[in-house]
Amino acid sequence: MIIVMKPQASEQSIRTVTGYIEEHGLQVHLSRGEEVTIIGIVGDKTKLSTENLIIFKDVDRIVPVTESYKLANKKFHPNPTTVKVGNTSIGPGSLTIMAGPCAVESKEQLLTIAREVRKAGATILRGGAYKPRTSPYSFQGLEEEGLKYMQEAKEATGLSTICEVVSLEAIEAAVKYVDMIQIGARNMQNFILLKEAGQSGLPVLLKRGLCATIDEWLNAAEYIIAEGNPNVVLCERGIRTFETATRNTLDLSAVPVLRRMTHLPIIVDPSHSTGSYRYVPPMAKAAVACDADGLMIEVHNDPAHALSDGPQSLNFTKFAALTEELKPFCDLMGRSFP
Amino acid sequence: MIIVMKPQASEQSIRTVTGYIEEHGLQVHLSRGEEVTIIGIVGDKTKLSTENLIIFKDVDRIVPVTESYKLANKKFHPNPTTVKVGNTSIGPGSLTIMAGPCAVESKEQLLTIAREVRKAGATILRGGAYKPRTSPYSFQGLEEEGLKYMQEAKEATGLSTICEVVSLEAIEAAVKYVDMIQIGARNMQNFILLKEAGQSGLPVLLKRGLCATIDEWLNAAEYIIAEGNPNVVLCERGIRTFETATRNTLDLSAVPVLRRMTHLPIIVDPSHSTGSYRYVPPMAKAAVACDADGLMIEVHNDPAHALSDGPQSLNFTKFAALTEELKPFCDLMGRSFP
Amino acid sequence: MIIVMKPQASEQSIRTVTGYIEEHGLQVHLSRGEEVTIIGIVGDKTKLSTENLIIFKDVDRIVPVTESYKLANKKFHPNPTTVKVGNTSIGPGSLTIMAGPCAVESKEQLLTIAREVRKAGATILRGGAYKPRTSPYSFQGLEEEGLKYMQEAKEATGLSTICEVVSLEAIEAAVKYVDMIQIGARNMQNFILLKEAGQSGLPVLLKRGLCATIDEWLNAAEYIIAEGNPNVVLCERGIRTFETATRNTLDLSAVPVLRRMTHLPIIVDPSHSTGSYRYVPPMAKAAVACDADGLMIEVHNDPAHALSDGPQSLNFTKFAALTEELKPFCDLMGRSFP
Amino acid sequence: MIIVMKPQASEQSIRTVTGYIEEHGLQVHLSRGEEVTIIGIVGDKTKLSTENLIIFKDVDRIVPVTESYKLANKKFHPNPTTVKVGNTSIGPGSLTIMAGPCAVESKEQLLTIAREVRKAGATILRGGAYKPRTSPYSFQGLEEEGLKYMQEAKEATGLSTICEVVSLEAIEAAVKYVDMIQIGARNMQNFILLKEAGQSGLPVLLKRGLCATIDEWLNAAEYIIAEGNPNVVLCERGIRTFETATRNTLDLSAVPVLRRMTHLPIIVDPSHSTGSYRYVPPMAKAAVACDADGLMIEVHNDPAHALSDGPQSLNFTKFAALTEELKPFCDLMGRSFP
Repeated sequence: MIIVMKPQASEQSIRTVTGYIEEHGLQVHLSRGEEVTIIGIVGDKTKLSTENLIIFKDVDRIVPVTESYKLANKKFHPNPTTVKVGNTSIGPGSLTIMAGPCAVESKEQLLTIAREVRKAGATILRGGAYKPRTSPYSFQGLEEEGLKYMQEAKEATGLSTICEVVSLEAIEAAVKYVDMIQIGARNMQNFILLKEAGQSGLPVLLKRGLCATIDEWLNAAEYIIAEGNPNVVLCERGIRTFETATRNTLDLSAVPVLRRMTHLPIIVDPSHSTGSYRYVPPMAKAAVACDADGLMIEVHNDPAHALSDGPQSLNFTKFAALTEELKPFCDLMGRSFP
Repeated sequence: MIIVMKPQASEQSIRTVTGYIEEHGLQVHLSRGEEVTIIGIVGDKTKLSTENLIIFKDVDRIVPVTESYKLANKKFHPNPTTVKVGNTSIGPGSLTIMAGPCAVESKEQLLTIAREVRKAGATILRGGAYKPRTSPYSFQGLEEEGLKYMQEAKEATGLSTICEVVSLEAIEAAVKYVDMIQIGARNMQNFILLKEAGQSGLPVLLKRGLCATIDEWLNAAEYIIAEGNPNVVLCERGIRTFETATRNTLDLSAVPVLRRMTHLPIIVDPSHSTGSYRYVPPMAKAAVACDADGLMIEVHNDPAHALSDGPQSLNFTKFAALTEELKPFCDLMGRSFP
Repeated sequence: MIIVMKPQASEQSIRTVTGYIEEHGLQVHLSRGEEVTIIGIVGDKTKLSTENLIIFKDVDRIVPVTESYKLANKKFHPNPTTVKVGNTSIGPGSLTIMAGPCAVESKEQLLTIAREVRKAGATILRGGAYKPRTSPYSFQGLEEEGLKYMQEAKEATGLSTICEVVSLEAIEAAVKYVDMIQIGARNMQNFILLKEAGQSGLPVLLKRGLCATIDEWLNAAEYIIAEGNPNVVLCERGIRTFETATRNTLDLSAVPVLRRMTHLPIIVDPSHSTGSYRYVPPMAKAAVACDADGLMIEVHNDPAHALSDGPQSLNFTKFAALTEELKPFCDLMGRSFP
Repeated sequence: MIIVMKPQASEQSIRTVTGYIEEHGLQVHLSRGEEVTIIGIVGDKTKLSTENLIIFKDVDRIVPVTESYKLANKKFHPNPTTVKVGNTSIGPGSLTIMAGPCAVESKEQLLTIAREVRKAGATILRGGAYKPRTSPYSFQGLEEEGLKYMQEAKEATGLSTICEVVSLEAIEAAVKYVDMIQIGARNMQNFILLKEAGQSGLPVLLKRGLCATIDEWLNAAEYIIAEGNPNVVLCERGIRTFETATRNTLDLSAVPVLRRMTHLPIIVDPSHSTGSYRYVPPMAKAAVACDADGLMIEVHNDPAHALSDGPQSLNFTKFAALTEELKPFCDLMGRSFP
């Protein structure tokens, strides 16, 4: 943490700042340049709210020198993490394909989809049982019943399973039935839920919030890991911008940026980000080409009759065609196809 | 709900759409124009996922005719709502000033601030006991202890009180100690929390999410009201944009837009939106001038030592000067100053 | 300009950076803290592309210490500037109201509008003769003919006049007929046009670009002033965000932010920013309340038949009612009403 | 164009709208549904400003049925366009790589770079001679001198050439020396420049504006084509969002979206969008994988000493490694590598 004083900062102003820092049990390192004076802070910065320094007289800016997240930070964990999910794992050397319906609608539907996505190469079955919906009058999911179907689909196909959770109650149910839980975009900064996910013992897929910076996203991951759960996978799913031709704007550059910042695996969701089945195949290929560790893709037996997110769901034929197309991209990227 | 077909839509495509609608127990109203055919849907639209229609052949676009929120909608409740909070109320004819520290830090601090803000004209004391913080290593609040101090401050000063809640546990505690609960920006689409707030019986201040559209915000209010709690107050607190000169971008135009859309009272928070105490007075005046029903302002006895959000907090002198300045603006707007 | 090295920067890395700086004829000021080493640059920074330093090994970040704009900067010109426009002026102590049609449509139309807006208190007549339109098939303006009508309206009413320019040709015509030229949002970073406007000798209203930061906006003003033309007025007219309930998002906080950064006068355009006549009055009042020096408002004799921007234009009755309402706000803000 | 009336629209309101349309020489097609009445407009819509209709009583919304751009629209030109540039061409079946320095700095520099990028597979040399810079004090380019060096580099290497233009003067110079001109992001809605580019006779690379929607971008292309110049290539170069980890946010989804909307070729610029050489290779591969027709990449002999955009420039080694990596991606996408 460095405090840059304004060009004409008075001695009095400088002393006020250094006094404030020392009063909190920290030391200062003073550097008087030709142009400006810079004050470095030495010691445990959690002892003071450094943001407050900006209101001191003659303080120009506060420059953080280190990220606030540690456990998710590549600096301290240079090797990439592999996260085990049921009988598969996400990380370097392989491409993970999570596929399934946006919402679990019935046991038959889920089993049919599970068999088809498995055949086409998916290793993890996704299916929403608790649906966060913009309007209270939209379908909200089958809840625990849906989770039970997930378990049956797992037993029937051998697929690992993932389900979104929206509350402690949902986590407690999920622990009984699925292999991985998902924190959705709207809950990315629901810090209570992040802590509970951290305590659940299950690996966690953490979707990026619609307007979350990469830094905030990694701090959200830190909440989970700080509870003793290192099995966090990040999922880019589009951010909110002014462009409306796609539902959100898929920020694929986040993949290489995250690669430099964190050791956690990175997944891309081309379905929610684009909002249209037409754009899923090209963006899935692009995600593999920029080195994502996996994909989350919505697949439905009958998109026109889906209870949620039909427009962005692939039918079986399109999904199978896509995974076939992905194989040579996996080869190029040095990843085994499931 | 209107479905606009593409200019050259085939008869077959039109029949597929009308068949789909009728198969869900709804009726169609077909209109063949010179240029395009339009299909109106008659009946209870909650019976089908109309969004899916976009994937049907030759469908050009889906045009919603009515908003998805009903209880928060001015169309069905033309008169403005007044929300009672403890011994005061928020709505037409008066200006409500909520003031207090970002975070409750100690009993003494809170009592001192409560007395000062009351003297300057505030009628509701704000104070955070559960703090959603970006980093898990930042101060997270005094929790229930903080709520008890809020109750003591209320008893000592006669101020009504408001506190943010982040979980069911926090709501259950808040019910015992404060007059109003707040759903923060990061939880605006935490639908479980919205429902629980709706069931709490307390009036709810619903802050706008950082990237929430006004439509999504009113749908979030609908979640609360749909649980039988009509006492919702909306709080504009800035949205996330590309501009970094302020912490967020205060969207003051939302005030007159909301006035047309909803009957709920509207409050503006110039502290969190701008992130700097310097910008709070001008934006507070602007908010009153565009007809906000109230203000939420952060006030601290010693901003430089605040545990949270010091840079945007007003000290006592600045706060008293601001409320003094606001009085003639209240007169102009036909609102009584507390 | 300060270079912050990474925590474990090697001696070699530090020497490479200092060598690079010295090789450009500048001096370094080295400060070795406990945590990081900081390198200050002393001398004329225009001699090197400091942005490049970020690619040097072990460089963590580059921290600018001073703004890149000088002539527009309040630091070097602490007193507010008053800009003379025809027989009126824009700046402290008065409220300037610019009003008129989006596009000049005919001589009769313009004269009628000019008389009405003058009666209601406007001192500057606005009217577009060169219209930048999204589609090439939309009405593009009367060009020089329109400027002549502006001159006639000026002679008939005594109003000063302003017109948008989009090319050198338009500037050359404008110099003959109007008192002030306007650079529109889409041309805010058309640097050639900025330079030509700087050489025109006329005062310039510089609208903020739709996605321009305040810093970029002030740098655009710097282009004009650097040509020897200090008569620049800034106009906030909304930025592009995700919210679609208004055409753009009026960033009123920009008014107090600019007040701290620059000595130039600041005008607000509630018409283009909101895109709806309904929101113009509340946002006009809010702009005055946060201390804008003036307003630019679209007024049309018959908005329903306007060739451009009808939905956001006030008719004569609404405009007169608004200026009447603004008077007491001017009094409160210590500004004379025209 | 369809006008949707409000649910309880009166007969009088409907008649006012239909009268207004008919008074402009157009016909109406009236459809009275159960819920709402819809008014279709038949005839040449350019005759009236349909946007104005929103201010008529009881009008709920205006729904455009057709895009405002025609010549750039795939609906009317289903086959993909190939644009010839010097002795190469951009379009289906091949991958075009444009490479070179951000700014032309000297003849020697340019020739060195030209030879190296040609060796690595580039077919078009880029080099800026007119630089639009945020600050007036930054290096602004060598202007016509720079263009002459471009011509020399073309003669020495056989590469085709492209240069950004910022004014009519620059276009007139460019016509003499280079094969293609570029309209930069900041000038995407400089409609005068677009028209002049349309009249230049040269193929035009049109970069997307920082906050331009895809619809606005295609309308900008329409300006060029409407002048009789069909040789337009679109270049996605990132949009402005809240995320600051990259300079802008590369909107790769724009590639498949454009593919559906237009017949024009699409190029991606991973250098300007990300702002860091580190992210150029992964995003270049992603661009090819989602079917871009080409890439524009900044290459510099000595990035640390570049006069502009050093941090995002690849050196020769990195560029050659990247093109080598791209070859198998070209194969997969059915595109020949230059």
